[in-house]
Amino acid sequence: MSARLTFWFEFASTYSYPAAMRIRDLAAAAGVILQYRPFLLGPIFSAQGWTTSPFNIYESKGRYMWRDMARLCEGYGLSFRKPEVFPQNGLLAARVALVGLAEGWGEDFVEAVYRAEFAEGRLINDPAVIQSILRSLQRDPKNVFDRAQSDAIKTQLRMQTEEAQKRGIFGAPSFTTQDGELFWGNDRLDAALAWATTRAAL
Amino acid sequence: MSARLTFWFEFASTYSYPAAMRIRDLAAAAGVILQYRPFLLGPIFSAQGWTTSPFNIYESKGRYMWRDMARLCEGYGLSFRKPEVFPQNGLLAARVALVGLAEGWGEDFVEAVYRAEFAEGRLINDPAVIQSILRSLQRDPKNVFDRAQSDAIKTQLRMQTEEAQKRGIFGAPSFTTQDGELFWGNDRLDAALAWATTRAAL
Repeated sequence: MSARLTFWFEFASTYSYPAAMRIRDLAAAAGVILQYRPFLLGPIFSAQGWTTSPFNIYESKGRYMWRDMARLCEGYGLSFRKPEVFPQNGLLAARVALVGLAEGWGEDFVEAVYRAEFAEGRLINDPAVIQSILRSLQRDPKNVFDRAQSDAIKTQLRMQTEEAQKRGIFGAPSFTTQDGELFWGNDRLDAALAWATTRAAL
Repeated sequence: MSARLTFWFEFASTYSYPAAMRIRDLAAAAGVILQYRPFLLGPIFSAQGWTTSPFNIYESKGRYMWRDMARLCEGYGLSFRKPEVFPQNGLLAARVALVGLAEGWGEDFVEAVYRAEFAEGRLINDPAVIQSILRSLQRDPKNVFDRAQSDAIKTQLRMQTEEAQKRGIFGAPSFTTQDGELFWGNDRLDAALAWATTRAAL
């Protein structure tokens, strides 16, 4: 049986950026097959009484997070630039990602969106930004947007968000293994892959 | 110039337990001199509007934390048992730790308190538990308690808590370097030591 790991991410999430940029190489090296699961943190945060990111609610925690992100990305050799808008609405990007994941270009799209948001200072809720990413991936923006706004994709994103909540996910990135183990945060990516290849695959 | 790192911990904090059990060996291997700084999270959490640990306020986050702690401690080879009471009041232990740190037995005391709380199912706000730890370290509990309740020690703990807050500390464990860099969490212990020996020591 092949080892598998599900990668839960939200485009608004800062720490999902380094996770998304690292996970493909690390999973390939570990022989782990990935399942990408975009979801929305908004409904999960709302259920906890938050109307924005906890990094905006708790000032010292937010200040620390930006510094930590800069240090982490430097260590990983990833470009990083603090976005002027945070958090950004990732709804459109998440719907487009679902189209791409079904069509085989989703992983590249996910990386490009995170790079636009956290390295290039672009606004990912701007349809023009998503369209330019799609063109860079040789996709027709109009076709993709039509599919992304379909009821099927909208429902899929809603269901994935509900499934995340049911699995006890409360932040992003998160990783779940075939035996139901949950790992939270970019810091747990290695532990999640190790679990997927050992205990979960038994 | 020797590399130095300040270790900020709170006895109620779960993740401070593995950090406290690992930091002496790791610092010695890295040639880093440690300064132990017990502080209280209560006033810091109160300022954020919390009346208990966020792990109690946010249920899924709390459930995850206990599972994560069990996995982490297993990985480190540390005994772990979820305490029946959480969070525990660490005021007495923190004051006693300050006495011990001034007298040279503080580091051993800190480890013994965390072990009592997170491996042995004991209540660290019970004076009898602290007294038995002191006896195991060949200290006279009465003498130590008298010093721990002195105005000097009470003031010192209050000032350290204020200093933590001024430095932007919002959780435990935290680590600060000589050049003012802040690292939060057991997960950042290695990065903090690396920073202390490279950039901060330049």
